[in-house]
This record gives sequence, structure tokens and C-alpha cells, in this order.
Amino acid sequence: MTERLYLYDTTLRDGQQTQGVQFSASEKREIAAMLDGLGVDYVEGGWPGANPTDSDFFDDAPKLRATLTAFGMTKRVGRSAENDDVLAAVLNAGTSAVCLVGKTHPFHVTTALGVTLEENRLAIAESVAHLVASGREALFDCEHFFDGYEDDPKYAVSCARAALDAGARWVVLCDTNGGTMPARIAEVVQAVIAAGLPGDRLGIHTHNDTEQAIAGSLAAIEAGARQVQGTLNGLGERCGNANLTSLIPTLLLKEPFASRFETGVSRKALPGLMKVSRRLDDILNRVPRREAAYVGASAFAHKAGLHASAILKDPTTYEHVPPETVGNARIVPMSNQAGLSNLRKRLADLGLDGTADQLRRILEVVKEREDAGYAYDVAPASFELIARAELGQLRELFEVKRYRVTVERRKNKRDQMVTLSEAVVVVKVDGEKRLSVSESMDETGNDRGPVNALSKALAKDLGSLSGHIEDMRLKDFRVRIMQGGTEAVTRVIIDHEDDAGRRWSTVGVSANIVDASFEALLDAVRWKLLQ
Amino acid sequence: MTERLYLYDTTLRDGQQTQGVQFSASEKREIAAMLDGLGVDYVEGGWPGANPTDSDFFDDAPKLRATLTAFGMTKRVGRSAENDDVLAAVLNAGTSAVCLVGKTHPFHVTTALGVTLEENRLAIAESVAHLVASGREALFDCEHFFDGYEDDPKYAVSCARAALDAGARWVVLCDTNGGTMPARIAEVVQAVIAAGLPGDRLGIHTHNDTEQAIAGSLAAIEAGARQVQGTLNGLGERCGNANLTSLIPTLLLKEPFASRFETGVSRKALPGLMKVSRRLDDILNRVPRREAAYVGASAFAHKAGLHASAILKDPTTYEHVPPETVGNARIVPMSNQAGLSNLRKRLADLGLDGTADQLRRILEVVKEREDAGYAYDVAPASFELIARAELGQLRELFEVKRYRVTVERRKNKRDQMVTLSEAVVVVKVDGEKRLSVSESMDETGNDRGPVNALSKALAKDLGSLSGHIEDMRLKDFRVRIMQGGTEAVTRVIIDHEDDAGRRWSTVGVSANIVDASFEALLDAVRWKLLQ
Repeated sequence: MTERLYLYDTTLRDGQQTQGVQFSASEKREIAAMLDGLGVDYVEGGWPGANPTDSDFFDDAPKLRATLTAFGMTKRVGRSAENDDVLAAVLNAGTSAVCLVGKTHPFHVTTALGVTLEENRLAIAESVAHLVASGREALFDCEHFFDGYEDDPKYAVSCARAALDAGARWVVLCDTNGGTMPARIAEVVQAVIAAGLPGDRLGIHTHNDTEQAIAGSLAAIEAGARQVQGTLNGLGERCGNANLTSLIPTLLLKEPFASRFETGVSRKALPGLMKVSRRLDDILNRVPRREAAYVGASAFAHKAGLHASAILKDPTTYEHVPPETVGNARIVPMSNQAGLSNLRKRLADLGLDGTADQLRRILEVVKEREDAGYAYDVAPASFELIARAELGQLRELFEVKRYRVTVERRKNKRDQMVTLSEAVVVVKVDGEKRLSVSESMDETGNDRGPVNALSKALAKDLGSLSGHIEDMRLKDFRVRIMQGGTEAVTRVIIDHEDDAGRRWSTVGVSANIVDASFEALLDAVRWKLLQ
Repeated sequence: MTERLYLYDTTLRDGQQTQGVQFSASEKREIAAMLDGLGVDYVEGGWPGANPTDSDFFDDAPKLRATLTAFGMTKRVGRSAENDDVLAAVLNAGTSAVCLVGKTHPFHVTTALGVTLEENRLAIAESVAHLVASGREALFDCEHFFDGYEDDPKYAVSCARAALDAGARWVVLCDTNGGTMPARIAEVVQAVIAAGLPGDRLGIHTHNDTEQAIAGSLAAIEAGARQVQGTLNGLGERCGNANLTSLIPTLLLKEPFASRFETGVSRKALPGLMKVSRRLDDILNRVPRREAAYVGASAFAHKAGLHASAILKDPTTYEHVPPETVGNARIVPMSNQAGLSNLRKRLADLGLDGTADQLRRILEVVKEREDAGYAYDVAPASFELIARAELGQLRELFEVKRYRVTVERRKNKRDQMVTLSEAVVVVKVDGEKRLSVSESMDETGNDRGPVNALSKALAKDLGSLSGHIEDMRLKDFRVRIMQGGTEAVTRVIIDHEDDAGRRWSTVGVSANIVDASFEALLDAVRWKLLQ
């Protein structure tokens, strides 16, 4: 017999408290639709009336299977629920469910609100009753519940009970400051249930201030809570909220949760999770966290040589769940640490094979170059070029004879300081020498630097090859100064993409940053010509 | 009565399994020294013999108060411990402690190793006995212990016991695949102790594959384990290891741990934690995670209006620990009150003061420029120049009229490809225009790149000022591509030092990497001339 466990998403409300995050109304609509597609039960859309974006969002609310929920706070002491304009704005959003936050910690009631404990509890009861009377599903967020419980367990529980008695469908126990240990969360939830508040009316809302938001949520569920709140990618105030992107796969794939609970997210929808996570990062223009649980690019990357060789025999040796269950994929990166079996698998993925001697030679070259500062696990296209060269499967179609790049800073005619970059590249292609020159300007006439100029000049005229590289676009450029052998060298990683949707990364290393960049650019062109 | 809890750092070994991470030997030395400064008990330096960098590191091992530990694996079946070359390489590193990993999961013993269960157990016992006979402190990492325990609890425990009986100081229970829930980790650790293996000989090693590495480690400690392994910033294979940067503050500041345990890290050393975390990101050229627990820039940022106003009344309303305990600081974006007093303190440190209006103007300039990509927290010398300029306390002693830098790659007389960099800088100093030209060659005649050439040309002839800057040396150069406003810009941080032992950092930002570098170089010279 499985029990129903409810997922409540607050990406659009608590997630928006992340420093630097501000969703537009249309972004909110897109995110709500993604959450709905996954199968989340509740989507908290924001605080209608608190800011223009949230009001806009609710004015043109998306149609969802999930319960769209408006957030607000309990009525202020000294006016009736009917006459509280803040509460009225929340109700006016017209959602079928409303979640109100209120105080349950005596210190906050008296310090922050400056009202009596009894006045506060009454405000909770009246606010919830008002929601119910308006025909809404009512939820009550017990702010600072766990801290309040340490201070005065009777009062904290009495506030939660007041909300339930007034008709709240859910009372959500919030660890607002994020400082409660999971074991203590479990004890408190058990005590609350023992005090007569049923677990199937209790929710849990945790924060990641000790990096234990997930564990705290799961501890509350094991203790009996049946609603769990969180955000996509763990967005949220300070260190963030419980990360639904980690929580959902654990609930669906891991014991004791998988066989005990049923959620709105099905095993069939779960492989969509990684895409949802990435799309959110896209919207926020954030670089996705490689090491994120389940959905990170490195979550199933096996770098250690011993791991990599075992993975090839049986993936369960070093994977706790299959990557495809969450829409992710296994990576066996090529690096210093890797062994022969790892290499053979990498080559097979590229449709290549070689003798044991050739493989050993490739490993040797990779090791040597990584010691010099190259990093092939993040530049697979450069790795492929090395492998093909050693296997005798690389034909060089052109040769760079020389290049020169100039950066000049001086006054222009209008007496302004301007910078100019100019690059000349000389290649031999189709048996002929060709000279190309480019300068580097963006649409606004500003200089984009020597690497940009070199990239343009290199691509400008490769004779009969030009047609094959014209859809290449430089997407990202990363630089690191490191110790390579005995002295500091510059490592440059460059990402390109093309119209076929390919994205490839190459690496260059030199004491000279321009030279390192040019090497990576050159690899990018050579790799593209292989396709 | 407090109990001693031991901290074991594996940043330099398991942390190096992070995709894209490859420390140089000198970086390893710097990180080891930072860990030692914090007070970590064990520093695992790597696997001697497995790759050249790790061998180099141990060849010139740093002197530490902490126990420097070499990592390796148990001897192979079919040869004696004395005749195993892999094990010999580990012992040859000469560390006082050695940690060997071995299998404890029957499936891995038979599938990955292809030996019998008894042979494997014997290999563990003999390897550990060999370490002890060599006078080393022996640690045994029980790989896949928790998965092995599910499969065959008797066998898993018997392997751990074999290591203890052979003289291991510590047996470390590893959740290698990161899939075990914290509650289950607690149960298994309890069972192992009940089976007669003492808790003060047990360590715990977790991974973050369900985002619960911290919770799993703490659960094991509560269950009786007395050594905990982790990495700085949670580096490590796949999703990373238990993050010591989160774990250490929780053990020192949070109950039930704070009053129950004593660790090598003191409350006095704890405020150094944030700096250690940031320096590691610097070394890796990674953008620090704003939302990281305790040490993230957002960890004590209060964005919600309700939170911010309460924080001003009493910080404990929304903070579970005081930010300064870990070297962090509160951010209340709503008020620039904090900003002003902060700024006044920084200026006083420089012997400067200003009117409220001047201070506000400095704050404005700093904020504007930080939005554009500058970072003054890591470039205090550039900050000082801005502050002095706004306070009218900066006299410009020279002016750069223009510069030009050329990088050329071509064949030399002996038909080898060589790269040449040449820089011309034109300055006005003492009322006169001066032209300087430099090329960039190191002792071996190799080109060191355009920034080096520019640096030399700029310093070559500053007229009467030249004497004041001749002892400047460029020490470090860090580049990061970042979003500055709407487009990608390059940020360059340059460190210099001089004969008086001063070390100062400056920043430059531009779409053009050479330009950004030149700006930072220029600031460095201007700051030096202030002294």
C-alpha cells in the first residue's frame, strides 16, 4: 500500500528571494508550465499585491493541472480579515488555494510584530477561517516553527492547531532560518503528530543553511509529514530552499521512499527533470552546476581510472541510480587518471579502435600534455584530434604558416581613447598560400579583443574548406593561469557550436595567452572539418 | 566531557577526481598549508606513483602539523605485500600515515577483482599488517561498505574487522556511490559498533549524489563514528564529497555537536574558513557559489523585505549563526547603512577619512564598477586608488598616451615555429613624452606573452619615477570571463610584490583581454608610486 505524498513548489515565490533573481511574469508562466508538466501538486505563484510582476502573473494566470497557489500573510492585528487590504489583494488573485504565512515563535510575535501571543494566534485562526469562508483551499506556513518549538513548544503547536481547527487543509512547519538539524526536525514532527495534529495535514519547508535541506525534508516525511515544499535547482533566500531537483528523484527512485509513497510526478515524467533544471538556468542565465545531484553534467561522470574500468563492466558498480531515469547520461572523461579500458570505451564511442600499442601511446600523449597544463576531460574535441592523429586517422587539410595580431590603444580623431585589434593569418590550403586579415569590432564599434580578431581571420579564407566552417560560432572562452611543469602557463578552453546543434570544446596551452587561444581555435576548426 | 572527533581532508585526492580539476604540485602544497592552518587532523595528499603530479608533491612534501597521508590500494592477490610495486610506491612516499582502499562488497570482489572473498580479505589484512610493520599509521577505506553491507553484512564487517585486527588505526566506512540515505547510514554504523568494532576506530566517507553527504556524515557521527572525511568546497568524484566547508562550522557551532565534540579546528581558527574556501576557488579559477552554506556571499543576505527589516532590529531573527563566526558578513541590500560604516572602516584602515557625501560617492562608483565586472574585494589596491581619487588625495604622476602590442607566430631561421611578443608604450612624464619598447623573453629565450611584454615596456622608462618602481615583480595573473552588464567581459586580477615585502592586487575589466591586463598593470604601477 503506497501513501500519497504531495509536492509543493515555491520557485516562483521563495525562489525569487534568491540574490540576483527576478522573474518576469512571462518567465513565471513558463516555469509554472514546466512544473505542471513534471507533475508537481502545488505551484506557488508569488505574492499578489506585493510587487507588480506577481500581480501581472496572477492577472493572466496559466491554466494548470496543478493547484496554483497565491501567497500572503495573515491579517494584521487590529483589523478584521475582511478589512485587511494586504489579505484582500491575495484573495483577489482568484486562485483556488491560498497559503498564508504567520508567526509561531513567541520571540518573533513580541519582537517583530509587537502583539500579544493570543492576538497573534487569533489572527491566524481568523485569517484561515476567512480563506475557507471564501471557498479557498487554505494552507498555513508556520514561520520559524522549529525555533519557536525550542522556545515554547506549547505555543508553537497551539498556533498550528488554531490553523487546522479553522479549516486549513495543510499546516506547513517551516525551518525559516535553516538551522535545525534533520534529526531534530524528525523529533519535532513526531511530537507534533503525537500532540494530535495528523501527519497527512502537515507539510515541511526547509532551507539549506547547513547544506541539509534535503535531509531535513526527508526526515520530516519519515516522521509523518505528507507535504514537502521546495524549489527547482534549490533557489531561495540565503542558501536556498530544499532542492526539488534532488528531492523528487530520491522520492521516486530510492528506498524507503520509492515503495512507500506515490507522488504526482511519475517515473515516466522523471526523465524530463534534467531539461527542466537546465531550462531554469537558461532563463536565469546561470551556468548549470556540474556537480548537482542527479541532473548535473558531472553527476554520472567517472573520472577515477578504477571507477571508469569497473563502470564499463557494470554501471551499477559506481552508480546508485541509472542516469537515464532522470534524463542524464554517463560520462567517462579522458584524463590523467584514466586507464586503458576507459580509453577503449571513449574511442568506441567515436567509432574508433586501435592496437594496445596505439592506445598506450595515446594515453602517454594525454598524460604528458595534461602534465603540461592541458585538460582533456573538458575538451573532448581536442582529445579526439590527438587520438585520431595517433591512430593515423587524421588528415590535415590546411597548415597555418604564421599569424600576427596587434592590439593598439590610442586616441581617435575625437580625442577619445579607443582600442583596436587586428589579426593577420597565413595558411596553406589546396597547395596555395592565403593571407587573411580581420579586425575585431562588435555592432557598436567596440573592440572585442585579439582572440576575436584571430578567430575571424582564421575562418576568413580556408579556400575550398571555407564552406564547411562558416556556421561555426564561438560560444564560450575560459582562461586559467596554472603551473604547467615548472612555470606558469595559460590554459584556454573554447566552446563552439554550429547550425547542426553540435557543441564542441577545445583546449590550448602556452605561456602566451594569445598563442594558447590560437591553439584552441585551430583545434576547433580542425575538429569541425572532421564532421 | 567532550569527545575528540577527527577531521580527514581528501581535497587533494578525492577532490582531484572532480571533473576539470587537476592540481599542480605547488597548488597542492598551498592547499595543504591552508588545511593545516585551519586545524584539520589528516591531509590526504594523493596517490604516489599513480600520476607524476602526486609523485612530485610527495617528493617535496610540505611540513605540516597535520598528519600527511598517502593514498593507495591494498596489494593485489597473487603477490605478497612486500612485492607489490603499486603498494611499494605508496610506502616510498615516506608519509607517517597511509590510507589503503580495498573492496568490502562481495559483488565488487568477484566482479571487479575476480578473486575469492577469502583472498580479498586476506589481501586487506596483509596490506595493513605490512603498513604497520613499516611503522606507519594505517587507515583502511572500506570501499562500497554500505552497499556491501546490504548484500552481505557479515562479509562487509569481516573485512573491516580484518583491517582492525591487522593493526589499522582507522577503518573508514565509505558510501562510495553516494546512494545511501542518512538514516540507513546511522543504522549500519550502529550495527557495526554492536558487532564489536569500536566507534573511535571508525571513519565515515560520504558522497553527495542525493545532496545528503553532510547529513550522512553527521548521522554516522551521531551513531558513533569518530573520524569524518570530506573536501573543501565539496569537491570530489561525480557530485562531490562531504563538504568540509559546511561540515566544520556545523560541528563547531551547532548542537548537539558543538558541546559534545572537540575537533582540531578551533573557534578561533573558524573565521578563516571563508578565505580558505575562496582561495581554493581562486586556484581553480571557479566562480564561488554565492549560495554555499556558511561561506557563500548570499549565505547571510536578507533579500525579503520582511526579513531585512527584522534583521536590523535583531540579527538572530533570520540568522541561525552569526556570519562573523565563519569569516562571512551580513548583506542587507535594503540598507546602505551597513555599507557606509563598512566603508568608513576600510578607509580608516588606509589612514583615510571623508565626508558622508564623499563616502556615498565612493560607494556609488564601486557599485557601478562592480556591476560592470570589477571585483574590489580581491583587488584592494585598485579600491584604494578609487577611494583616493574621490577624496582628492591622488596625484597622477604620469599619463599613458598610447600603447601597441604585437604577437607574431612564424618560423625562425632554423625552420622552427616560434612566437614573439613586442610592446610599445608611450607615456607623458615630467612634462615629456617617452617611448619604450620591449619584447618578452624568459631566460630560455621563450616568449612569455603580450602582458609580460607590456609590463616590461610600461616599467622601462618612467623618467624620474623609474627608481620607485624597479623592484616591482609580477607574481600572479588571473583571468575570468564574466557577464559584465549585458555582454561577456574579461576580468584580470594581477598580483605584484616588491623588495619591501609588499604584495598588492589590482583589477582591470574589458572585452579585450590585453586591455584589461593593461588596466590592472597600470593600477599596480600607480599604487606602487603612492608608497
